Amino acid sequence: MSHKKIYEYAVDENMELFVLIKSADVRVAKNGNQFIAFNFSDSSGEISAKFWDASPADTAAYQPGKIVLLKGKREIYQGNPQIKIYRMRLVKEGEPNDPSLFVQKAPVSKNAMEAEFNQAIFEITNPNWNRIVRFLLKKHQEDFFSYPAAKKNHHAFAGGLAFHTLSMLRLAHAVAHEYQEINAPLLYAATILHDLGKTIELSGPVATQYTLAGNLVGHIVLIDEEVVKAAGQLKISLESEDMLLLRHMLLAHHGLLEYGSPVRPHLLEAEVLHQIDQLDASIQMLKGTLSHTQPGTFSERIFGMDGRNFYKPLAETEQPEQE
Amino acid sequence: MSHKKIYEYAVDENMELFVLIKSADVRVAKNGNQFIAFNFSDSSGEISAKFWDASPADTAAYQPGKIVLLKGKREIYQGNPQIKIYRMRLVKEGEPNDPSLFVQKAPVSKNAMEAEFNQAIFEITNPNWNRIVRFLLKKHQEDFFSYPAAKKNHHAFAGGLAFHTLSMLRLAHAVAHEYQEINAPLLYAATILHDLGKTIELSGPVATQYTLAGNLVGHIVLIDEEVVKAAGQLKISLESEDMLLLRHMLLAHHGLLEYGSPVRPHLLEAEVLHQIDQLDASIQMLKGTLSHTQPGTFSERIFGMDGRNFYKPLAETEQPEQE
Amino acid sequence: MSHKKIYEYAVDENMELFVLIKSADVRVAKNGNQFIAFNFSDSSGEISAKFWDASPADTAAYQPGKIVLLKGKREIYQGNPQIKIYRMRLVKEGEPNDPSLFVQKAPVSKNAMEAEFNQAIFEITNPNWNRIVRFLLKKHQEDFFSYPAAKKNHHAFAGGLAFHTLSMLRLAHAVAHEYQEINAPLLYAATILHDLGKTIELSGPVATQYTLAGNLVGHIVLIDEEVVKAAGQLKISLESEDMLLLRHMLLAHHGLLEYGSPVRPHLLEAEVLHQIDQLDASIQMLKGTLSHTQPGTFSERIFGMDGRNFYKPLAETEQPEQE
Amino acid sequence: MSHKKIYEYAVDENMELFVLIKSADVRVAKNGNQFIAFNFSDSSGEISAKFWDASPADTAAYQPGKIVLLKGKREIYQGNPQIKIYRMRLVKEGEPNDPSLFVQKAPVSKNAMEAEFNQAIFEITNPNWNRIVRFLLKKHQEDFFSYPAAKKNHHAFAGGLAFHTLSMLRLAHAVAHEYQEINAPLLYAATILHDLGKTIELSGPVATQYTLAGNLVGHIVLIDEEVVKAAGQLKISLESEDMLLLRHMLLAHHGLLEYGSPVRPHLLEAEVLHQIDQLDASIQMLKGTLSHTQPGTFSERIFGMDGRNFYKPLAETEQPEQE
Amino acid sequence: MSHKKIYEYAVDENMELFVLIKSADVRVAKNGNQFIAFNFSDSSGEISAKFWDASPADTAAYQPGKIVLLKGKREIYQGNPQIKIYRMRLVKEGEPNDPSLFVQKAPVSKNAMEAEFNQAIFEITNPNWNRIVRFLLKKHQEDFFSYPAAKKNHHAFAGGLAFHTLSMLRLAHAVAHEYQEINAPLLYAATILHDLGKTIELSGPVATQYTLAGNLVGHIVLIDEEVVKAAGQLKISLESEDMLLLRHMLLAHHGLLEYGSPVRPHLLEAEVLHQIDQLDASIQMLKGTLSHTQPGTFSERIFGMDGRNFYKPLAETEQPEQE
Amino acid sequence: MSHKKIYEYAVDENMELFVLIKSADVRVAKNGNQFIAFNFSDSSGEISAKFWDASPADTAAYQPGKIVLLKGKREIYQGNPQIKIYRMRLVKEGEPNDPSLFVQKAPVSKNAMEAEFNQAIFEITNPNWNRIVRFLLKKHQEDFFSYPAAKKNHHAFAGGLAFHTLSMLRLAHAVAHEYQEINAPLLYAATILHDLGKTIELSGPVATQYTLAGNLVGHIVLIDEEVVKAAGQLKISLESEDMLLLRHMLLAHHGLLEYGSPVRPHLLEAEVLHQIDQLDASIQMLKGTLSHTQPGTFSERIFGMDGRNFYKPLAETEQPEQE
Repeated sequence: MSHKKIYEYAVDENMELFVLIKSADVRVAKNGNQFIAFNFSDSSGEISAKFWDASPADTAAYQPGKIVLLKGKREIYQGNPQIKIYRMRLVKEGEPNDPSLFVQKAPVSKNAMEAEFNQAIFEITNPNWNRIVRFLLKKHQEDFFSYPAAKKNHHAFAGGLAFHTLSMLRLAHAVAHEYQEINAPLLYAATILHDLGKTIELSGPVATQYTLAGNLVGHIVLIDEEVVKAAGQLKISLESEDMLLLRHMLLAHHGLLEYGSPVRPHLLEAEVLHQIDQLDASIQMLKGTLSHTQPGTFSERIFGMDGRNFYKPLAETEQPEQE
Repeated sequence: MSHKKIYEYAVDENMELFVLIKSADVRVAKNGNQFIAFNFSDSSGEISAKFWDASPADTAAYQPGKIVLLKGKREIYQGNPQIKIYRMRLVKEGEPNDPSLFVQKAPVSKNAMEAEFNQAIFEITNPNWNRIVRFLLKKHQEDFFSYPAAKKNHHAFAGGLAFHTLSMLRLAHAVAHEYQEINAPLLYAATILHDLGKTIELSGPVATQYTLAGNLVGHIVLIDEEVVKAAGQLKISLESEDMLLLRHMLLAHHGLLEYGSPVRPHLLEAEVLHQIDQLDASIQMLKGTLSHTQPGTFSERIFGMDGRNFYKPLAETEQPEQE
Repeated sequence: MSHKKIYEYAVDENMELFVLIKSADVRVAKNGNQFIAFNFSDSSGEISAKFWDASPADTAAYQPGKIVLLKGKREIYQGNPQIKIYRMRLVKEGEPNDPSLFVQKAPVSKNAMEAEFNQAIFEITNPNWNRIVRFLLKKHQEDFFSYPAAKKNHHAFAGGLAFHTLSMLRLAHAVAHEYQEINAPLLYAATILHDLGKTIELSGPVATQYTLAGNLVGHIVLIDEEVVKAAGQLKISLESEDMLLLRHMLLAHHGLLEYGSPVRPHLLEAEVLHQIDQLDASIQMLKGTLSHTQPGTFSERIFGMDGRNFYKPLAETEQPEQE
Repeated sequence: MSHKKIYEYAVDENMELFVLIKSADVRVAKNGNQFIAFNFSDSSGEISAKFWDASPADTAAYQPGKIVLLKGKREIYQGNPQIKIYRMRLVKEGEPNDPSLFVQKAPVSKNAMEAEFNQAIFEITNPNWNRIVRFLLKKHQEDFFSYPAAKKNHHAFAGGLAFHTLSMLRLAHAVAHEYQEINAPLLYAATILHDLGKTIELSGPVATQYTLAGNLVGHIVLIDEEVVKAAGQLKISLESEDMLLLRHMLLAHHGLLEYGSPVRPHLLEAEVLHQIDQLDASIQMLKGTLSHTQPGTFSERIFGMDGRNFYKPLAETEQPEQE
Repeated sequence: MSHKKIYEYAVDENMELFVLIKSADVRVAKNGNQFIAFNFSDSSGEISAKFWDASPADTAAYQPGKIVLLKGKREIYQGNPQIKIYRMRLVKEGEPNDPSLFVQKAPVSKNAMEAEFNQAIFEITNPNWNRIVRFLLKKHQEDFFSYPAAKKNHHAFAGGLAFHTLSMLRLAHAVAHEYQEINAPLLYAATILHDLGKTIELSGPVATQYTLAGNLVGHIVLIDEEVVKAAGQLKISLESEDMLLLRHMLLAHHGLLEYGSPVRPHLLEAEVLHQIDQLDASIQMLKGTLSHTQPGTFSERIFGMDGRNFYKPLAETEQPEQE
Repeated sequence: MSHKKIYEYAVDENMELFVLIKSADVRVAKNGNQFIAFNFSDSSGEISAKFWDASPADTAAYQPGKIVLLKGKREIYQGNPQIKIYRMRLVKEGEPNDPSLFVQKAPVSKNAMEAEFNQAIFEITNPNWNRIVRFLLKKHQEDFFSYPAAKKNHHAFAGGLAFHTLSMLRLAHAVAHEYQEINAPLLYAATILHDLGKTIELSGPVATQYTLAGNLVGHIVLIDEEVVKAAGQLKISLESEDMLLLRHMLLAHHGLLEYGSPVRPHLLEAEVLHQIDQLDASIQMLKGTLSHTQPGTFSERIFGMDGRNFYKPLAETEQPEQE
């Protein structure tokens, strides 16, 4: 058996490999039999597959979180990658058994990310913002580095939340560098915190669901709540301009009321935060989709990009030398 | 001199009466001279008037909060009531001098309102909601009974906030009575608190402006902040379903994201709260406008009702006997 | 055989009971065989079920309006209740055979409803409105008390039209009581008539469809036509303010042009009518949905509430004492 | 004194001519004095003018409907034609005094229009539609030929209603000729009736206002009412398909619910009626505006065309020979 | 074997006939087997059909462009016509084998269309527009007379592009005749060219797809490109008013930015072009749909008409005599 | 006389300085006299002022492009800076007389900008894109470095077009550096060209108006035309993928059809181009507005930011050390 990963197989190639069951929906087919709609994953990505005529034993055995040995064929169905299953079984003694090895990970290590965050925090020269950021990052540290940034669409992988935050921080740095009028400490502090409420909104890195607090309150107000409580514990006045500015940045970062911000941006830095959030999310979604698209064709339609499909050019991309 | 109030004069009647200067905007006319755009008020309502060719002495003397003796004529200008000023001067020794006697007031006394609120609180049988409501009502008691419910449009008079809340509470009572499935204590608790953040969002009962917190955070998140802090002080867990339900009610009460709620209603009671809020605000706006409209004509266009104008029928309204 | 009703069975419990075939759609499955998509009902509500591999004899026998003896299991499929069919047959001699016993009914008897309507009509002190209301209610009496209020979504049960009208009348009474400015007779008259055009728009209480007049003219203009013809027969001038007010109430009751009203509300009472119509429809839809939702979970998405799903709290609701 | 008409004077030319006062709004200038905002007209069109520092005698004398001798200068103000008034006075004995000679008229005589309508009615071979059309045209004949088609924007001149109807009838004829599938009698009948409700919606050909019925019911439902009453008098069943089709045509002719139709078009002929209505209205509005626009420039923004301005080319238009 | 065409068979009649495979989508059914979703056509129109449990040999054999002998039954499925396939095979030697005989064609011959276009070109008296039109029509002549006007919805048949253009030209003629202010040569020139870019946007008359240029540039800018290049070759100045007017007509013909026009119409003729384009497209879509609808019923919902369904009256249409 | 610039004077300070008349609109005041609405400028920015009771000699003398000696006072009127004019006259012999010294300029010199553009062009390694960019930049060089980027709102100063392009190029560089998947040469080429059509759309750096081509064709299609013609002259095939990609980038850069792009972005790089265009435009608008806003207050509402006003914090911004 080779050791190729899911996306190292070519389309129409036969596959034999270990994969993690990411999700497993049992449904009834139009012929009355049950089938299982799987999402499998390994470190190269996720892929869907259907298991027809599933017996009760099958539906009991193939639960999310299990690792299986899979034989099948890589296919394209209506523009999307999927696997046609020939045979599958649970792993045995002595075969790979650690789910954490079968999930896509942020392309930067946790240590490297932490180092960059620390450098940015060092540049948050305003003491109130600095203390709030350090307090909350410490409080939610573990989840921050393991959660995805979203249930799906963009950065939906383990560590995606921290990695999305890091990418934005790099953009924030570039933008603050280019436009001296921007209050960089404010922009950095808000960038780091802006999606931290997702550690409360979402259930965790695996089989990610919205929590009740996520559904009824939402991550924007949840991070505001965290800031309010942190200020109380750190004896920072919530009536100071500093705190109103920081909270405004977080509350307004979705940009439009229709997107769930209770206020629209009314600070230069809040507008910038919103726009670099969009920019990073868009690029990440497109990167992910285009990585599985054939050159010279259009991708499937992307829900998070208003249902547009994107063209992957034939021409090989020659990058200019980067300094 | 008679003792008639502003709206006791007929259109085109000459007036002589004491009024309060509610607001006084100094502007430059197209001929280059300054004029003052006044809003005058007494207990019968507000009315606008223009003072042409104002000298520096005039603009210095006629400040908001002052009471003046006014001679003029009641007029209608493009459908709106206004006064043509003949002459005016500040009051002298011995003349009326207490601004609080010249503002429109809630049609129910503060004592009567408090009694009704207490009765409603008695019906909030859930101890967590009961304690939060009593804590916050006590904390903001003075402002709650003196603030307007809005800068303009609806309930824009002293005590309007409490009165709007009271009207809604009566509607909430009727609706909960009619539909047994409604969780009445939850609806009552949220009704009482829903606009309490306006005591922080607005600057006060006179010359009402938005505060910085009002502009950058907004009254919906401000009341959420108050609940979060109150729960901390009262040792009530913010993770309990009770508290998530109550906060959701408050966060969702504008109904639509476009109206500034960070979440839409996802509870039966939250939907009801939103709709009775709209109903009371609409009726109050229409009452106010129609009270100054001639029977058989259409009112001016009302901004808060999508710019619609409303017809005041000629036919005298005969109320049926109410039990 | 027990005598339990559909919704008295627990999820996953085996069922054996008599039900009415409310609707029966014959479709082709992806394997090329026909199946029947049923809606069954009894007095506890409606539920769907699929009958696979239906023979021509099956599709001929199982017609809407028939009563069958059904064996199966109650299930939840993607959040919605359904029945897995084991076996079914038409009823035999001596078994229950009256369809009217197997439909959901308004929770108030026709007699009780009539008494309340008569009381309200008594309070319509304007003679023109009073005569029009009595004339049209008498003309459409039978249909008014047997039709549903809508094809689906809200009050979609026999007698739903009268019951929805009654609920609104109670709200109208409460609102008119609270705000003395409201012309109560006008509000009551329009409330009673507002949806009466649905007796012409819809085909009837069973297998409800839109009629050609319903599709091409619509219930709003159909009730206007009824009022025009009634005025002719009762010798009431259509040019009187009375009649223009009443017709405006009916024409404007959907509130927005986009919802099919040819004019928006331009009377205080027309605005109130629209809002209490929405309020009652919303509560009724949510009541229906939540009655089948597990505590601690979210309901399915509700089309008539903009696709929102609603949370049913775990906490038992304790109603305050109602006077 | 020359006998030139308003639009026969060049821009910046001094004028001396008789004009009709079409409307006269008395307003207060920013210097506190009254002025009159006039619309003058003669058979060449309308033009606005301001009369500064109007005395009470002026405002009493210069009423709509009066004819005046005017001296002034033709000007362009912000792209719109206007007159700078030097002097004006009411006409004296022996001077022109018939207002009907000073209004713009339909470019086709009433007799010629009647002949064309009669020819079209002859082609309405369906007896029900034929009788309804003849009945209603006769009932409203006088107003139909004297009313404008709208308060402003398009065909806002005496006889505009009949002329707009006639232009559409010609388009309807051309379209029915080109597409044989169209039911021409239905299209012609509905075209003739579609705006006839405006004779009830509007107050008359001069100083045109909306009537109370126009505001509360609207011309679409008013013509439906006329058809309902006519059918009653002519003993034509309102339940026949014929009558439902005709009423649907009239109700749907605004095309979109947002434009006030209570139903959208669901007949081929209803869709065609809506589109030729739009086409004729657009062309007429643009014709009117461009007739006063300088070649090589853009017109003022046109409210009825979504605020767009239109370019009038420099190049002389050479019409091809028309057969 | 009869020689009836697809739509000459009645619903539920058994069929045996030759048809062209217009498209053939291989999909996986819910039971895991493959099936083919066909569109068949002959000169009477198109119809869909499903071929269940397709073997690899089937999917290999039944490719678009092949002609097959088909046995089956005409059916109606959810309001749309389809065929239930009993048996099918590829044609043999000696059986019909020319795909061009099995496609729907424009109802006017190519020669007749050319004659009408030449007459219109003769009326384009402006030499610049005349030369551009003749140059481009000659360049794209073959495609212009063989392409459909759209992938689907309206005029989706061979020659549909020229036929749609011709129908519009006839409307343009009628409108220019009725309103003398219209610059007829400009309207005719732009009408002829307005959709010519579709010969570059679409792949061809069979198995029509969007080209890469179609997807990335779109037919509106593609025809603009053609005009720019033609002007270069014909030495006509692109800065002349003539050329700006013509290009504006083409760029603005979708009417709204949302529909892909980079500018909205700012010429009378551009507005007219847009509206007659819509009118012809609407009528053609409705004609096509209603030709397969049973009298007295509603059609399926039509995507290109905002999802509305249309009623086909029972009453036989009697056309008036056309001169 | 001091040598202070407009914005070096404090609010309410008396001013005496030379300024350029940027625009001068003659209007009629409500008292019937003419006045001139000026925009004055010097290198510190623009400011408005009204000149009351202007004589014909005044309106003749004070034309755009003239330099005047102005005495007045700096004021704030409804949140916007303006000057109250005491006295003004045209400059005399020996006084400053070069308009180019009185306009706001790009904050980077033309030479420095050219150097950066050349460096970027060097990184456009694709020869087709490289040649097109160099060809068009050379063709429009002079205008590119002197035009504003817009009539108003953002970068509305001389050289603004090149400076806006340069700022975006720096952002493009930072983004391409951060995300290796981006085709940097394509992004750079399109960034440089994206607004170059404005040199044809706008009339010039002074008294900027839209040209006829700007109004009827628009800058997006105008740059596409330039690319088409350039490709013809450089013998580059317009059918190559290279050229379709580049044209798509330019056509799609407004992001939404509603904003005038005939196609939405369907390339990763096209999406990025659109977003960094928005980001730079937003920041530039906010910088400009906030530079005239008092700390601790909100700016006036900004049209180009959906009418939002922005808060300028009290707290002094301390920039972190930038490397």
